[in-house]
Amino acid sequence: MMSGLFVTLEGGEGVGKSTQLRLLRDALQSQGYSVLATREPGGSAGAEDLRQLLLFGHNPLSLRAEILTHFAARFDHVDQVIRPALADNQIVLCDRFTDSTKAYQGYGRAEGDPAVLELIDVLQAQLNLVPDMTFLLEAPREVTRRRLAVRGVPTDRYEQADEGFHARIAAGFRAIAQQQPARMRCIATADRTEEAVNSQIMKEILSRLSHG
Amino acid sequence: MMSGLFVTLEGGEGVGKSTQLRLLRDALQSQGYSVLATREPGGSAGAEDLRQLLLFGHNPLSLRAEILTHFAARFDHVDQVIRPALADNQIVLCDRFTDSTKAYQGYGRAEGDPAVLELIDVLQAQLNLVPDMTFLLEAPREVTRRRLAVRGVPTDRYEQADEGFHARIAAGFRAIAQQQPARMRCIATADRTEEAVNSQIMKEILSRLSHG
Repeated sequence: MMSGLFVTLEGGEGVGKSTQLRLLRDALQSQGYSVLATREPGGSAGAEDLRQLLLFGHNPLSLRAEILTHFAARFDHVDQVIRPALADNQIVLCDRFTDSTKAYQGYGRAEGDPAVLELIDVLQAQLNLVPDMTFLLEAPREVTRRRLAVRGVPTDRYEQADEGFHARIAAGFRAIAQQQPARMRCIATADRTEEAVNSQIMKEILSRLSHG
Repeated sequence: MMSGLFVTLEGGEGVGKSTQLRLLRDALQSQGYSVLATREPGGSAGAEDLRQLLLFGHNPLSLRAEILTHFAARFDHVDQVIRPALADNQIVLCDRFTDSTKAYQGYGRAEGDPAVLELIDVLQAQLNLVPDMTFLLEAPREVTRRRLAVRGVPTDRYEQADEGFHARIAAGFRAIAQQQPARMRCIATADRTEEAVNSQIMKEILSRLSHG
């Protein structure tokens, strides 16, 4: 029996996921909750090894193999870290999960190819763990581009991708959110303070925790 | 349209797969066939990176993640090497394929757990490539143990596994062969010369090639 709460943050590069993850962790801990903050790809020792291959490997994988490798890391992360934490009644906050694979590989790289989306759905069904709540952070590309420029040089292959790819990812996330209205909330992060965004998300999480 | 022939060799450690692969490649090439000889895990650049993690990694993956990683390597190998070779009308000879994942992870590590066997079947269905012919090489454990001793110290984590694991693998391969009688042939390699075994396999392959 799972008893904790599994919350994921999703969105493209520069929408503010890691900042919000940190603020959420701190706010929930200050209210006495036990929180595990983690991120994908990676989050367990073996999954971090796979992350290195995915983000910095020199031998490009086929698209299908790239998807399988993301899920290999995810299965390890779920089996060795996330499920045990949920069973221990913790709140798990995760920066990226299956929705990112669908947006980046399914809509970004494969441009919505039904066979690729089906592969991802089949793997997700085998994984057998769906987030309780997902917050999709969104900001216009000119805003995220400015934020990424402040961070400095692009560090991995996704940040270096072309504009068409980023547009397909944003549209993909939006399509997933429309298919999953009960689980996903779209949160605009442009023109708002980090604290205002955090308050909105905290309010939704606390409401969920108080209503079971 | 696939037009080549996809042949896999299967079996536990020390049954003679790599020797038979080499003899088959040479015999087919000497008859004028175009042959690609390859092996798993690995066989493509990206899959070789994953092989390193699987066989020599320091951070053990969960069983499900190990299966996903084997299939990630297999999808890359199929997409980038095997399918192009078959489309080019070559005979592809592969040392290990999905049957090994089923025998080692499904029957060896998971002891036949139905959920694990289902995960493997679902991944194989997505892969969408089944060997045309599979030769399961078999020898009693006392024979394979002697052969492995001649090779020297164990080199990877499978060769170092305990006897119960090897017995479950052998029984697993036998179970798969019983489920797939049209595709799989069991070939005894103990008490016969390498050349005699090669002749038997060559005869079956040439018969298949001449009858389409």
